[in-house]
Amino acid sequence: MFQLHPVLQKDTVLIGEFSLSLVLISKDANYPWVILVPKRSEVKEIYQLSLADRQTLLEESCLLASALVEIFKPDKLNVATIGNMVPQLHMHHICRFQTDLCWPKPVWGEISPSAYANEALEVFKQRLQLELGSNIFQ
Amino acid sequence: MFQLHPVLQKDTVLIGEFSLSLVLISKDANYPWVILVPKRSEVKEIYQLSLADRQTLLEESCLLASALVEIFKPDKLNVATIGNMVPQLHMHHICRFQTDLCWPKPVWGEISPSAYANEALEVFKQRLQLELGSNIFQ
Repeated sequence: MFQLHPVLQKDTVLIGEFSLSLVLISKDANYPWVILVPKRSEVKEIYQLSLADRQTLLEESCLLASALVEIFKPDKLNVATIGNMVPQLHMHHICRFQTDLCWPKPVWGEISPSAYANEALEVFKQRLQLELGSNIFQ
Repeated sequence: MFQLHPVLQKDTVLIGEFSLSLVLISKDANYPWVILVPKRSEVKEIYQLSLADRQTLLEESCLLASALVEIFKPDKLNVATIGNMVPQLHMHHICRFQTDLCWPKPVWGEISPSAYANEALEVFKQRLQLELGSNIFQ
């Protein structure tokens, strides 16, 4: 049975679900950062998903990417499945700016996470829920 | 008209083409590392591709991932579109091992690239061409 990995549970906030994937906002305020986790157990790599699930994941990823670009207007998106530390398949979507703290390097392991101030995480959550609309259920 | 970015041209070796993407082996011998570049101009992000192209890219990515796992038996694949330095859409596929030089960190910007010794790059190229078979044309 699918269960979210404890590290992802600790480091993110659930804001809704696509048909296949959980939509999780990273608590690291250094960058707008959203993670998709397909609700499938025992899967580490995209190619291990069924053909239908792969296509669904990609469409969910593209809906999320469009929403993030609409909201944040980043200079670049970084979209990645790494999973060296947390093997459960999860797909990062990170909005990058030429002015952010570790541009142009990738974000992993570079800078200590920073906590969101006060209501900022709630504002991000509501804005993204609004942008994704009926594509997710909450 | 599509043209491969000069940095990708310098840092990789072309080994063949899927219907959508060029298949390029990175010259960095620290990790088995293959990059797909869709032959589409002016595209920076996956979501900017047409629906058909997205699905094709994903299938090409999965074929490549399976081939790399078959050949190298990595502990983990890292699959990513970053593009902070080279904006042309390109998708990394990197075989990672718990014994590699920068495990468990992602590879970008961590360790200076290392050159392949003698025939090793040619062996990698032929092995991957064999594994991908008629899925690519050379």
